[in-house]
Amino acid sequence: MAGNSFGTLFRITTFGESHGPAIGCVIDGCPAGLEVDPHLIQQELDRRRPGQSSLVTQRKESDTVQVLSGIFEGKTTGTPIALLIPNEDQRPKDYNHLKTAYRPSHADYTWQAKFGHRDHRGGGRSSARETAARVAAGAIAKILLRKAGIQVQAYVSQVGALALETPYTELDLSQTENTPVRCPDPETAQQMIRLIETTRKAGNTLGGVITAVVTGCPPGLGEPVFDKLHADLGKAMLSINAVKGFEYGSGFAGAGMHGSEHNDRFTEATAGRLRTSTNFSGGIQGGISNGMDIYFRVAFKPVATIMQDQASVDEAGNPVTIKGKGRHDPCVVPRAVPIVEAMAALVLADHLLRQHVNDEWLMMNDE
Amino acid sequence: MAGNSFGTLFRITTFGESHGPAIGCVIDGCPAGLEVDPHLIQQELDRRRPGQSSLVTQRKESDTVQVLSGIFEGKTTGTPIALLIPNEDQRPKDYNHLKTAYRPSHADYTWQAKFGHRDHRGGGRSSARETAARVAAGAIAKILLRKAGIQVQAYVSQVGALALETPYTELDLSQTENTPVRCPDPETAQQMIRLIETTRKAGNTLGGVITAVVTGCPPGLGEPVFDKLHADLGKAMLSINAVKGFEYGSGFAGAGMHGSEHNDRFTEATAGRLRTSTNFSGGIQGGISNGMDIYFRVAFKPVATIMQDQASVDEAGNPVTIKGKGRHDPCVVPRAVPIVEAMAALVLADHLLRQHVNDEWLMMNDE
Amino acid sequence: MAGNSFGTLFRITTFGESHGPAIGCVIDGCPAGLEVDPHLIQQELDRRRPGQSSLVTQRKESDTVQVLSGIFEGKTTGTPIALLIPNEDQRPKDYNHLKTAYRPSHADYTWQAKFGHRDHRGGGRSSARETAARVAAGAIAKILLRKAGIQVQAYVSQVGALALETPYTELDLSQTENTPVRCPDPETAQQMIRLIETTRKAGNTLGGVITAVVTGCPPGLGEPVFDKLHADLGKAMLSINAVKGFEYGSGFAGAGMHGSEHNDRFTEATAGRLRTSTNFSGGIQGGISNGMDIYFRVAFKPVATIMQDQASVDEAGNPVTIKGKGRHDPCVVPRAVPIVEAMAALVLADHLLRQHVNDEWLMMNDE
Amino acid sequence: MAGNSFGTLFRITTFGESHGPAIGCVIDGCPAGLEVDPHLIQQELDRRRPGQSSLVTQRKESDTVQVLSGIFEGKTTGTPIALLIPNEDQRPKDYNHLKTAYRPSHADYTWQAKFGHRDHRGGGRSSARETAARVAAGAIAKILLRKAGIQVQAYVSQVGALALETPYTELDLSQTENTPVRCPDPETAQQMIRLIETTRKAGNTLGGVITAVVTGCPPGLGEPVFDKLHADLGKAMLSINAVKGFEYGSGFAGAGMHGSEHNDRFTEATAGRLRTSTNFSGGIQGGISNGMDIYFRVAFKPVATIMQDQASVDEAGNPVTIKGKGRHDPCVVPRAVPIVEAMAALVLADHLLRQHVNDEWLMMNDE
Repeated sequence: MAGNSFGTLFRITTFGESHGPAIGCVIDGCPAGLEVDPHLIQQELDRRRPGQSSLVTQRKESDTVQVLSGIFEGKTTGTPIALLIPNEDQRPKDYNHLKTAYRPSHADYTWQAKFGHRDHRGGGRSSARETAARVAAGAIAKILLRKAGIQVQAYVSQVGALALETPYTELDLSQTENTPVRCPDPETAQQMIRLIETTRKAGNTLGGVITAVVTGCPPGLGEPVFDKLHADLGKAMLSINAVKGFEYGSGFAGAGMHGSEHNDRFTEATAGRLRTSTNFSGGIQGGISNGMDIYFRVAFKPVATIMQDQASVDEAGNPVTIKGKGRHDPCVVPRAVPIVEAMAALVLADHLLRQHVNDEWLMMNDE
Repeated sequence: MAGNSFGTLFRITTFGESHGPAIGCVIDGCPAGLEVDPHLIQQELDRRRPGQSSLVTQRKESDTVQVLSGIFEGKTTGTPIALLIPNEDQRPKDYNHLKTAYRPSHADYTWQAKFGHRDHRGGGRSSARETAARVAAGAIAKILLRKAGIQVQAYVSQVGALALETPYTELDLSQTENTPVRCPDPETAQQMIRLIETTRKAGNTLGGVITAVVTGCPPGLGEPVFDKLHADLGKAMLSINAVKGFEYGSGFAGAGMHGSEHNDRFTEATAGRLRTSTNFSGGIQGGISNGMDIYFRVAFKPVATIMQDQASVDEAGNPVTIKGKGRHDPCVVPRAVPIVEAMAALVLADHLLRQHVNDEWLMMNDE
Repeated sequence: MAGNSFGTLFRITTFGESHGPAIGCVIDGCPAGLEVDPHLIQQELDRRRPGQSSLVTQRKESDTVQVLSGIFEGKTTGTPIALLIPNEDQRPKDYNHLKTAYRPSHADYTWQAKFGHRDHRGGGRSSARETAARVAAGAIAKILLRKAGIQVQAYVSQVGALALETPYTELDLSQTENTPVRCPDPETAQQMIRLIETTRKAGNTLGGVITAVVTGCPPGLGEPVFDKLHADLGKAMLSINAVKGFEYGSGFAGAGMHGSEHNDRFTEATAGRLRTSTNFSGGIQGGISNGMDIYFRVAFKPVATIMQDQASVDEAGNPVTIKGKGRHDPCVVPRAVPIVEAMAALVLADHLLRQHVNDEWLMMNDE
Repeated sequence: MAGNSFGTLFRITTFGESHGPAIGCVIDGCPAGLEVDPHLIQQELDRRRPGQSSLVTQRKESDTVQVLSGIFEGKTTGTPIALLIPNEDQRPKDYNHLKTAYRPSHADYTWQAKFGHRDHRGGGRSSARETAARVAAGAIAKILLRKAGIQVQAYVSQVGALALETPYTELDLSQTENTPVRCPDPETAQQMIRLIETTRKAGNTLGGVITAVVTGCPPGLGEPVFDKLHADLGKAMLSINAVKGFEYGSGFAGAGMHGSEHNDRFTEATAGRLRTSTNFSGGIQGGISNGMDIYFRVAFKPVATIMQDQASVDEAGNPVTIKGKGRHDPCVVPRAVPIVEAMAALVLADHLLRQHVNDEWLMMNDE
């Protein structure tokens, strides 16, 4: 129960530290016969990798993925898919000055409280580098979802205090990848880029918000009690480094509304499926998808490593000054977009397979 | 994987429909030798039960709990604890007019999409009545946590658009139970009560927000990757009926801050433990508790059943009018306070036992 | 991880002590829409219950099952099925003389070592009474399997040293229920009955062997690595009280054979399915069913409670004499036949649903 | 639920096919601070690897293990331990003649029934090569157990019909590794070696039995209902390729005994622990260890690949002749000894950590 696995039927286990030889993951439960083009995995990793633009950390990692098992002649075999990403640009010495000091708002102190020791090499496993393994696994989940007509798209909707207020339904999400900040509104994107650059030069960092949209999800995904679809999406998002909040559909704003305005009215069926005239439910009712778009928002805190001196204490409890050093992102949300998509895809793939059990049974039972 | 269990080492499974003979739960993994006073379980159920004030549904349920197993001579035995709550005031006929119509923003349609049929008796298992079983189990989790010095307290911090802005640190949480609305600020509580009464008379409903605070949590609880303490708390909250959002510590507001202001500085140790001068982290760093207060906010949508006519469609896709009927809450947050506490207690009890594995090992390994 | 649940997709959790108010179980994951006649559940319980013949314990328990949830208008709803069996003939005082003494080959001592206390009321949860809950759950699994054409039948093939050597293929299994000893060969059955009676009169007890046969199982059930079909069957059987061994197909005898004689040759296909000319494989190859009969044998030790004085020690380590008292079976195998069937049915129902995931996917992927 | 993970708190996930680039495993839940000498892992792999003697397959694999994560400066960190074993001597072309034919008593046909395709490269994941990953993981479990004073030793007790009847208590188990057949009795070992050589020359194969003994296990390990210690050991053994049966303590022979002879009498305590004068219980009562030696026997079928022509059918149902080819073991038991030990160590390490939860709690509760 050490918590390095995620999912039930489509289940991943990740491993590896930021400054060890490699990171990776094992996917257990991906069905047999799925055509997987390895370039699609690499493509997702390239969206997350360091050094892709001036907005992100300049640590040099090609993040080249190796498929060790589970894919044969271009198709999944039904056996575990092991994916390996060697670490290349390890500079653990960058962290030597932090060997005994606790960095503010990092996991140094809590890690030591938990395990009785600490891995001072750049956070070890608490580093966001771990999420590269999730992105690789998520790429395969995305390919699986595509067979069912489901698509996951995320974008940056807020950087620091600068928020894009336009609802996703009025945005052209195909523009998301056109700027390094991954905001689909070109004008806001430029403002965000400038804000990040200015903040970086000041040695400071920013938080932000990512909005995600799932289209094409059939009704029936999600379990009604504990494993509600949005509960699993929420856990998935909150398990990403630096995430502080999750809301879906009307979210926190919905708390301020009346039932008469918040209720989504059913309209006549299109192709046998009901639709609703509004979508405050965010595509999920009672924890189960209803066939409308699923959308949610994820809040990220500002990066804790700043290029400024900070007062802290060391293991002996003595005051120390932490000097900002190393190669870090001034704002994580641009690189977190593929991570959010990957985690959402993993949740949906899992619930798709869980619903397969019901679907197959209902068919058999009818005969 | 039908999703009716929650937790890993302290694990509950709930069962029962709102209009069947009984609901209940089984707790597996509660350690042996814990003194359990059954009145404490009943006391928590009384906080959640219908009919406790004019603010809530007038359905009449005494919610009397029976302990079927796992407790002998006042102490837990280490075996499964089965708790049973008979249903008393079932009026499934109240729902006959809804047999084929889909209620807006309810789980009728999605349930049918999932299972190929529906239980029209007041929502069946998608009814919030299921949460009574969670409250009963949570009462035992609370007793366990008390042995470790951990306390969970929640209160209503927003009803509709009416929000209490005072931070929890400046409130007297012992006042929470003094008003039926469970807001610890007496003046705001009266305003909330009036707002709920007015809305109820208009046949409408309201959403709201609950804030929860965990005190006395030792450092080290939570797992660093997927099972982060706040990720499990988030899933727990999002699994409660009507919840639309979760944030902890600085939450969504933190997304708008700079790293230099958001970082929590460590101060010198008190009794061997570090503290931080601010607590934007919400008591959790890298998914692991740091010994500071854990606090979070949970957003609830307005109740979907309103006492007004609403347009909808039936199973054949024909337009129908749903008439508001039955006995429902105009706003769920007052009764949801013990549910939030129960789910938080279940998560913390689980992670406390998970950390026991590490603690015992570290001791054994040192010898 | 307290180990009171079994199965993954068709998952049961049992609860209750032999001398508490009730025992029972919750089935999570039974698909919706299955017609369940409650009499079939009762019928299986009647096969296991005490007092059914002079061969078994005379404890008086009607073992009447109550369905608390998950079945509505004669069909499963897809939600948890809770089954309750009240205890009736509790005589915990029968055990007062054992309050501090450790009964030989019982779980008294190990239980205390594990939990730091003991429940001296007739074994509490370590009593075989717990298996009644498994039989009730297994009855529903059997109904599910019948929809897929799968049938599970067990019978007594050995009592003490008296073994029925005829292979199952030459027996008429419809005769099993004709005698209280549940051996389908009439002549051997009479010998077994006499042996049990004689042994009982001598205040002694016997072990025995149960053979089980699964017919109609389609190819493809079972997972290739850890969750091999026979590995899960083996765990299921070994989890039954008093079981000491499990073998399937050729079993221990197969260890003495050559590959050239042990290999099962494929013959031409019947109705699209291959068959083998021999079946040393026991219907399973590489952990996956091959469509032939699955058969296995389960060894039970003699009942530990004998009606003779036995030397033992008490909690203080002092020598004591245990006097045989109470109402116990002289040989468990006749009553264990429905338990073996129930556990086998639970394993097969679980793997049937697990294979549903693959089947549904393969169909979707082909489109 | 694809079944490639094993264990709950000490949990492994294996991956990799016999003819892909590598196999390996991830251990999640190994506690922090355990000193691990990588040579001990390699040493166990060397006991299992091909080519170590003339009795086993001559496939050339050095089976060199790489530690990718979870160990830092010679100690476990509490994070997942990933172990990689590259495949070296892959000759998938050896199997081209089998592309469409089904080998008797192999998993070819069942695999195809399950996954809708097959991996004809030497069995792919159904190959016993997968067990190398288990041996690597088991080596770490053994190191963990040693800290608790627990030791696991296995040996060959039967090859074909040639059985060593001497009980383990009268053998010198330190002799096991002195002969390539891993039988601790020198004379029997020589007979076994001759039998294997003769059989191999005849192009035939043999089954066998392995006996395992666990010493130093404290009382209290194992869960009383489904996860009985011997049930988990049984599943572990039955999940090893070619295993047909499992028995512990008196096993199948116990079924023929009377209660009066089978009951193990408690004797006075040694160092605060009770002992029994006999040990038909095999060190486990009610599923929980009692502090005596745990011992069990595991039956293996003869290797299915023989160097003789065999009649079979192909995918189209046409008769074909399978010619014996490739590099295979004439008898698996000598190489299976470290596999049996590894799987037993994994089960015990898991239950040791599970019992840590109870132990730590009992201590905390007493304060």
